[in-house]
Amino acid sequence: MTEEATKRRRAGGRAGNKERAGSAAIDQMPWRLPVNPDRPTEPLDEDGVQAVHRATMRILRDIGIEFLNPEALEIMRQAGCKITGTNVRMDEDFVMEMLARAPETFTMTPRNPERELIMGGKYMLFGNVSSPPNSWDLERGKRPGTMESFREFIKLTQYFNCIHFAGGYPVEPIDIHPSVRHLDCLYEKLTLTDKVVHAYSLGAERVEDVMEMVKIAGGLSEEEFQARPRMYTNINSVSPLKHDFPMLDGAMRLARRGQPVVVTPFTLAGAMAPVTLSGAVALSLAEALAAIALLQYIAPGCPVAIGTFTSNVDMKSGAPAFGTPEYMRATQMTGQLVRHYKLPMRSSGVCAANVPDGQAMWETSNSLWAAVQSRTNMVYHAAGWLEGGLIASPEKFVMDCEVLQMIQRYFEEATFATTEEDLAFDAIKEVGPSGHYFGVAHTQARYQTAFYAPIVSDWRNYEAWNLDGAQWTAERAHKIYKAIIAEFEAPAMNGDHQEELKRFVAKRKQEGGAPTDF
Amino acid sequence: MTEEATKRRRAGGRAGNKERAGSAAIDQMPWRLPVNPDRPTEPLDEDGVQAVHRATMRILRDIGIEFLNPEALEIMRQAGCKITGTNVRMDEDFVMEMLARAPETFTMTPRNPERELIMGGKYMLFGNVSSPPNSWDLERGKRPGTMESFREFIKLTQYFNCIHFAGGYPVEPIDIHPSVRHLDCLYEKLTLTDKVVHAYSLGAERVEDVMEMVKIAGGLSEEEFQARPRMYTNINSVSPLKHDFPMLDGAMRLARRGQPVVVTPFTLAGAMAPVTLSGAVALSLAEALAAIALLQYIAPGCPVAIGTFTSNVDMKSGAPAFGTPEYMRATQMTGQLVRHYKLPMRSSGVCAANVPDGQAMWETSNSLWAAVQSRTNMVYHAAGWLEGGLIASPEKFVMDCEVLQMIQRYFEEATFATTEEDLAFDAIKEVGPSGHYFGVAHTQARYQTAFYAPIVSDWRNYEAWNLDGAQWTAERAHKIYKAIIAEFEAPAMNGDHQEELKRFVAKRKQEGGAPTDF
Repeated sequence: MTEEATKRRRAGGRAGNKERAGSAAIDQMPWRLPVNPDRPTEPLDEDGVQAVHRATMRILRDIGIEFLNPEALEIMRQAGCKITGTNVRMDEDFVMEMLARAPETFTMTPRNPERELIMGGKYMLFGNVSSPPNSWDLERGKRPGTMESFREFIKLTQYFNCIHFAGGYPVEPIDIHPSVRHLDCLYEKLTLTDKVVHAYSLGAERVEDVMEMVKIAGGLSEEEFQARPRMYTNINSVSPLKHDFPMLDGAMRLARRGQPVVVTPFTLAGAMAPVTLSGAVALSLAEALAAIALLQYIAPGCPVAIGTFTSNVDMKSGAPAFGTPEYMRATQMTGQLVRHYKLPMRSSGVCAANVPDGQAMWETSNSLWAAVQSRTNMVYHAAGWLEGGLIASPEKFVMDCEVLQMIQRYFEEATFATTEEDLAFDAIKEVGPSGHYFGVAHTQARYQTAFYAPIVSDWRNYEAWNLDGAQWTAERAHKIYKAIIAEFEAPAMNGDHQEELKRFVAKRKQEGGAPTDF
Repeated sequence: MTEEATKRRRAGGRAGNKERAGSAAIDQMPWRLPVNPDRPTEPLDEDGVQAVHRATMRILRDIGIEFLNPEALEIMRQAGCKITGTNVRMDEDFVMEMLARAPETFTMTPRNPERELIMGGKYMLFGNVSSPPNSWDLERGKRPGTMESFREFIKLTQYFNCIHFAGGYPVEPIDIHPSVRHLDCLYEKLTLTDKVVHAYSLGAERVEDVMEMVKIAGGLSEEEFQARPRMYTNINSVSPLKHDFPMLDGAMRLARRGQPVVVTPFTLAGAMAPVTLSGAVALSLAEALAAIALLQYIAPGCPVAIGTFTSNVDMKSGAPAFGTPEYMRATQMTGQLVRHYKLPMRSSGVCAANVPDGQAMWETSNSLWAAVQSRTNMVYHAAGWLEGGLIASPEKFVMDCEVLQMIQRYFEEATFATTEEDLAFDAIKEVGPSGHYFGVAHTQARYQTAFYAPIVSDWRNYEAWNLDGAQWTAERAHKIYKAIIAEFEAPAMNGDHQEELKRFVAKRKQEGGAPTDF
């Protein structure tokens, strides 16, 4: 992309970035909570929805879910579930009673209240790639995650207005010891961003530390913290049919303090789930609903969401595939059932590609459009994901943000409005059969905001593009990523809170951090 | 892609390619006419549909369309339209009466009756890129179109089972004189493919020659030719508000002999159409309906379709943009109106990118999914398009065919079926909480056909991909394109018909071909 192009300005583009006015690497869309106006794509008819629901209930009643957590088992026994060893079976009446307690919609308010999120309904929120052990970029290739890379991705997470929450670690900084990694990571997240953050449910100490740090960063009393969602966790079942100790432990700790829990089974059809997609979806739902029933029993009305991560494997190699037709249909079917249960939904922006090339973008586009079509509320890994989640890439992050911005623009009513002014009869009459629309008042009044303005797309012709270095998309994205990092300024933070955060991290490090033997 | 990978076989993959069994460059899906099961995405409510309809009718009644063809003008005068110079105005009753004559669905039967197409309803057909003046590939870069490149693209068009029709020239062979170009091009198309072909409406001689050649290739009498659609033309209006002489002339020639006409205005919002999208759509529909009214008046019940090519320009540079959010909404809105008029619909697979990179694939994905969402019946430029239609690329052709195959798989009911077998309760019970699904009978009975099998996607992990040369998608696609060309065998053809075609071409060349002064 040319200097000229990267310096282009667009009306309104600075609204969410006042602090960077005049030096922005890109001219992006302002911060907003996108609202998805489309009727969802529904592959299942009403009989199909009922069939998946019945299969889900039958799994919960007749097969049961393993809860590898004695406390959770004891709670489920008290709740009247049938316990056999670690196996928990529950009937439909109980499950539906518990689900009815959960809110259809809830908010999450981070330290900057202007970044408050609404989760549920037609809202659609995007988060950064989470948890890859490696990073890859055009300069350095694939390498293990470091704190330096972690910081870069957190800066991208903060910079892009189309990224609404700071999910899991965008890359695992393996140069930081696991006992204290969560302390350093959360310190960076809470100071480099002012967006909603996430806690991994990987042990009591980590979960408690993150909640404490969120409180400190926001200057919140325990009462204020518990009064409304301030952060969230995401737990994964161990498919098939199991919830492990730390995930259930973390989920219960958050639920008891009013913080949201997203339950996301990872059911790869043909591997840890049936090869048939509605079966894989039913298994995934059964796992999710079992955990949600537990949480609603111990904390009635606590905010929860159902996540889907149902994809398929390549049946020749066993390799996981993402953004496939099967992935899209599984996501859409899950959306239908999640709406049936009246809960918010999470899905993902995913691909199997190893580099940010054509395959990466058709797979990611497929998964993101499936998110739109399923009326997903929270899109994990919406920017930066490669290699089935084993790589985080800053170029891919920038490229994905282009797609996310296009989805946000696609949601705007202006793209399908039919007022008299939109129908433009007078302009059509004025221009007639031999004119051009650029010069007329109807166009001039609107041209600055009429269309989506890209950040990394190059719409010049081949010759102009070629003269300017013939850069493919990933190369242009690389330059934008570097420019963003170079100009990044951390969001304002109360100095006392930052000092207290530092002291807390130092104290907890001195105490040894968290055990690493789980 | 490894040799091993390119040689992979998949059950059923050879069904449509018996002649190549044992040597196939790729293992592709069999020939089929895809049926789109999804409810369309409908940004307009019923009031919105009526508003666009009323605006369209108002343009036809109060502004009128220029018909730069004296014969067409005289016909419209006889039909009772108001003629002022070349301006034709018509009222809603007349337009709707003419539209009611057109079939909702029709077939097109090429020389190989097994390649018969159904146009309309929920059928979705894909065609090759059409009309770029240049080609581009990884080896040779951008260069003007030649007959050599033309042949390569025609071979790709024939080879891929997911390409249903041979549209316009996939690249313009400028090394062949325009007076005889259509003769050489159609000879290649009719001998290298056995799929439905297209005639450009660029002068009476060309149109008549192509119809004659289609008759000869199929061994058809004039009566047999006229008995059912055997080919088609696509005409573009000269937006705003004009139909030129040769387009109307060609359309009338085909309509009178029962051959289909697709009418596709090219309305770039902000340039030759209003900057507001519903206005651009209304203008496009008015232009299309005016031509269709003419054709239905002269040949009641002749097969026609409405095409959409409404996109937007980059308002900073005036460059056309494709696959934008605005493009998607315009396509969806057009779909709603086309269904309102009960006609088949055409849209396109398009992008502004100059090379087959990430941008190319998100733009193309956006346009292809918009085609699905609008229930498009005929997708032009579905494979191989770059640079806003100025470049045809064989790598892009292969990459696009992966996306088209995924759309075909996405349509299969297996991806969202909910029979007891699909819901897989017994398999879930059998595997239980600690097993793996790969070994169970439920999986083994299905694994060969359970999931989409890719042709150019690489689903291996980074290390395996890296060891094998670290090829990005376009490089893998290049190898596949070369392998396809190397192994290509033309479809069988009646020897007498081929000889007669040769004689016809020689005779018409001797006569000087077609005039080139229009």
